[in-house]
Amino acid sequence: MDNTEKLPNSETITRTPFASSRKIYVPGKLHDIKVAMREISVEDAAIKGPGGCGSVVTVYDTSGPYSDPDVELDVRKGLPRLREKWIMDRGDVEQLNDLSSIFGKERLYNSDLDHLRFQDVKKPLRARAGKNVTQLHYARQGIITPEMEYVAIRENQRIDELREEMFQHPGQSFGANTPMTHITPEFVRDEIASRRAVLPCSINHPEAEPMIIGRNFLVKINANIGNSAITSSIEEEVEKMVWATRWGADTVMDLSTGKNIHETREWILRNSPVPIGTVPIYQALEKVDGRAEELTWEIFKDTLIEQCEQGVSYFTIHAGLRLHHVPMTAKRTTGIVSRGGSIMAKWCLAHHTESFLYTHFEETCELLKQYDVGFSLGDGLRPGCLQDANDEAQFGELDTLGQLTQLAWKHDVQTFIEGPGHVPMHMIKENMERQLKACGEAPFYTLGPLVTDIAPGYDHITSAIGAAMIGWYGTAMLCYVTPKEHLGLPDREDVREGVVTFKLAAHAADLAKGHPGAQYRDNALSRARFEFRWQDQFNLSLDPEKAVEFHDKTLPHSNAKVAHFCSMCGPKFCSMKISHEVRDYAKSLEADKQDAVATGMKEKADEFIQSGCQLYKQGA
Amino acid sequence: MDNTEKLPNSETITRTPFASSRKIYVPGKLHDIKVAMREISVEDAAIKGPGGCGSVVTVYDTSGPYSDPDVELDVRKGLPRLREKWIMDRGDVEQLNDLSSIFGKERLYNSDLDHLRFQDVKKPLRARAGKNVTQLHYARQGIITPEMEYVAIRENQRIDELREEMFQHPGQSFGANTPMTHITPEFVRDEIASRRAVLPCSINHPEAEPMIIGRNFLVKINANIGNSAITSSIEEEVEKMVWATRWGADTVMDLSTGKNIHETREWILRNSPVPIGTVPIYQALEKVDGRAEELTWEIFKDTLIEQCEQGVSYFTIHAGLRLHHVPMTAKRTTGIVSRGGSIMAKWCLAHHTESFLYTHFEETCELLKQYDVGFSLGDGLRPGCLQDANDEAQFGELDTLGQLTQLAWKHDVQTFIEGPGHVPMHMIKENMERQLKACGEAPFYTLGPLVTDIAPGYDHITSAIGAAMIGWYGTAMLCYVTPKEHLGLPDREDVREGVVTFKLAAHAADLAKGHPGAQYRDNALSRARFEFRWQDQFNLSLDPEKAVEFHDKTLPHSNAKVAHFCSMCGPKFCSMKISHEVRDYAKSLEADKQDAVATGMKEKADEFIQSGCQLYKQGA
Repeated sequence: MDNTEKLPNSETITRTPFASSRKIYVPGKLHDIKVAMREISVEDAAIKGPGGCGSVVTVYDTSGPYSDPDVELDVRKGLPRLREKWIMDRGDVEQLNDLSSIFGKERLYNSDLDHLRFQDVKKPLRARAGKNVTQLHYARQGIITPEMEYVAIRENQRIDELREEMFQHPGQSFGANTPMTHITPEFVRDEIASRRAVLPCSINHPEAEPMIIGRNFLVKINANIGNSAITSSIEEEVEKMVWATRWGADTVMDLSTGKNIHETREWILRNSPVPIGTVPIYQALEKVDGRAEELTWEIFKDTLIEQCEQGVSYFTIHAGLRLHHVPMTAKRTTGIVSRGGSIMAKWCLAHHTESFLYTHFEETCELLKQYDVGFSLGDGLRPGCLQDANDEAQFGELDTLGQLTQLAWKHDVQTFIEGPGHVPMHMIKENMERQLKACGEAPFYTLGPLVTDIAPGYDHITSAIGAAMIGWYGTAMLCYVTPKEHLGLPDREDVREGVVTFKLAAHAADLAKGHPGAQYRDNALSRARFEFRWQDQFNLSLDPEKAVEFHDKTLPHSNAKVAHFCSMCGPKFCSMKISHEVRDYAKSLEADKQDAVATGMKEKADEFIQSGCQLYKQGA
Repeated sequence: MDNTEKLPNSETITRTPFASSRKIYVPGKLHDIKVAMREISVEDAAIKGPGGCGSVVTVYDTSGPYSDPDVELDVRKGLPRLREKWIMDRGDVEQLNDLSSIFGKERLYNSDLDHLRFQDVKKPLRARAGKNVTQLHYARQGIITPEMEYVAIRENQRIDELREEMFQHPGQSFGANTPMTHITPEFVRDEIASRRAVLPCSINHPEAEPMIIGRNFLVKINANIGNSAITSSIEEEVEKMVWATRWGADTVMDLSTGKNIHETREWILRNSPVPIGTVPIYQALEKVDGRAEELTWEIFKDTLIEQCEQGVSYFTIHAGLRLHHVPMTAKRTTGIVSRGGSIMAKWCLAHHTESFLYTHFEETCELLKQYDVGFSLGDGLRPGCLQDANDEAQFGELDTLGQLTQLAWKHDVQTFIEGPGHVPMHMIKENMERQLKACGEAPFYTLGPLVTDIAPGYDHITSAIGAAMIGWYGTAMLCYVTPKEHLGLPDREDVREGVVTFKLAAHAADLAKGHPGAQYRDNALSRARFEFRWQDQFNLSLDPEKAVEFHDKTLPHSNAKVAHFCSMCGPKFCSMKISHEVRDYAKSLEADKQDAVATGMKEKADEFIQSGCQLYKQGA
């Protein structure tokens, strides 16, 4: 056994709970569901928790059961199959006796792979003949599925119970249908039915907790993982997935191009609490040994079936890249930078015909709707540098993606659209506006955009700037970029840095759009900062461990965490400390207003000086 | 001698040159000046260097003589006094026989400080009686000073010589007076005369290379350094300054609040190639042992004189915080978070009168114009959290700053205005618009703004998002934020991370505004990326060392730096490699167009397949 075949281990997978946090499960009202969230305990007098349960801040939690110490997990058996009953209860699926894909079967019956295969594989589900099992199909019939109620509750983070105590700046959402107070199951259904939102949940990935991608919901982020020809084991990939979701990845794309792609994916899926996306053409290309021109519809289709039956929830498919677009890229500075796009461009040139992704698009729709796998329509011609931004090739492809979106919708296949890329700030908005128009408000899912090309090593930041802005303008999901972008393969710390960076960008977008409740956590953290509740400040952070680590580098002693100052200014200069004095004084001024007028301002001043000026009433 | 008294050492200060770079000195046409820039050699056939000097990319360089191995430096003697002759030639200054400040003299004649004093101190210069020596004063008389010609040449980065080969997207500059092609000395003079730009250059800091801060020039960044009561030596502070300018700090603020502030500042100034700013109230407060209420105009004024005669180029002065603003902060979530602001608020309350900064403002102007020290009018009431953004207190103070700007201009004192803070994305633009209006287009200098409060440990990123946006909207200088913000004191790596992050944000703003030539480096780096010129890609980066380090983590072998693929995708999947094939094919298609029509598309396809499909003509 070589190192790349090392399997996941329940003992070593990250299961550290978050400090001062507990996992809670909020019950549904329409369905028998329990929606997982994380509750952070704080010492905040200003917060009255829901149901009188004390001072807590509830936050959206993508980490699944891993962060709940009360749940026993065995990676060899996979996560609990949360949605299995919901799916079966609908009565529109059947369990197959065997895999339908030729390649899947080859792998399953190859005893050489026994030692690295996930053992407890269930037989795949598929829609019964003539049935369409997509959430879009249900929504258009007026049905509120358990999945829809789940995401409604999940999106609210219990803000509906807390709203009256909540201050938030009104947002600016550029004509979006932003909900006014909180998310209802009906709203979720209607947004899905209008195709403005996608609820990616393959019937073969019942382990995933439902989540939603749409302009009128919280902005989501995706993290890419995947082995390559050069590095990584199955164990590492599963841990990367767990690690990425711990820090906030809402979906994970498995972009493996190395060995044992099929088996690696199985391990990831059975242990993933978030929907998994893939780019099937990568695996198809492996099957023809990297020779793009040898790809065929049959090989590709078998790959789709293989992955549908494993439980992938969305496929990036570069069907919008048409033959006549290819010459448009010849004058570009960086040509075609999408891997999938360049593979298909090469195929188109070799065969001098439209790609099989384009010509077989409706056949793909027929397939996907049997598993509720969504389209992530790939932008094979996204710009790879500022100079190529918003060019003829890019927007030509976008228009084709809009036509394909209509076709996908004809089949009630859930669809979102991928976007750029490298774009200077002032040209970002045009991307959003064109996408909304060309694709009928189908959700936009962007990579970056990176707002400059001159900062390799910092491209998580160049792209977070563009991501926050395009999220504000209406993008539904942001694909993370790590500091290693353009330079190398991300390691564990790069994944964390990338995920947290994009989580903060997504959150900044939620705030700017005025998503209901988005500012709640900011307010709570700011109050903690002002009241020198250091532990609360750490615990409310997106990355509490890093916050503690940074604080301790300057002031490592535990009593510094209750100090009414910090290392930046020291005790004498603390502006927040002085602010408390100002506040106390202003209060007394208010109370004594009548008196003050009578006795004169001079006297008040003397009084303050006599009281020591250093007066710090609260807890000192 | 304790550790904090450790002095700088010429042997240990960072002097590593940048790879494949050389320092060049572009001569002036009006004046006998030589403008320092950095020239990066690249193997780029598309670039024809100026004067036929080969393939080079010239970049703006803030690192001073430290990165020029041909210049001998001795930190005990300080940098060459570049501007001394220019200043003396104007004939409007006199050299004083002694320092004018009481405190300055005390320090100078205290033999206990001999061991840590910078030895080679020159006697200070001051305007001759009745003279005004500010660049604004000269500009308003129509004079183009050597400093003005210097910044004109510096801003251009020789783009005026390269322009014809240059593609750049037209920008969007929100009504700014963005120059169309390149910067002329006349343009610099006119922008200073119109007070839209500030050229900070104290007559007592002749070592500094002139630079300009204004909406119609490249966006600048400032890095804060300074010791505190807890940590750091003189040696560390000088090295931090050199280190910050190496990575791109255009100015440095010395915010020391610890021991030996006066002597530390002297060492920094004598060795700094960039203008130095301070917040004089910090040192004044040290003089009254931290008791804000004991501050007086006399102590403050003596501190101003002390620092003017050392060579500080701009002072943050929180003169806009008025007594009636203070109660407006009482209901805030985080009160007053500016240190200077909170000190003055406390003073105002203790004395129940307007602050001496406000009441003695014109006296301060009279002083500053004798040294050409500029105002950085401080925003003592900037919001410390999203919830407090754009409130009555903040905008009330801004209006006062606008009034003070008019007063400063009456005295021809160069002035810029400090801005927030913590502001959600959709509320940033209002800050810029109000500032332009209230302050008559005086340059804006902002901290952040941070676009969310929930990411301590990542606040260089939350603020870089806001900084890039407000820079685009018209802010002239961005104050850096490090990853340690809110948590601890930045170390060397934090300073680098903060500086590079803000450099990329500033550059993103330049691109969006359409600053002439801004996109040149992006294009050059992108071409290098597409042509697999790895070394050029690294060398053209803002942080070449990090780019190399990241690349080498995955592919450490030196032959990987000439490979026509990278670790992300491996050789089979390289989209850029395939793009080259597409390009070659498109070229042949174009050439044979007539033929192709005749022989049919099928034939072309066969031809491509027969040619091996893997064809990669360039250099392979």
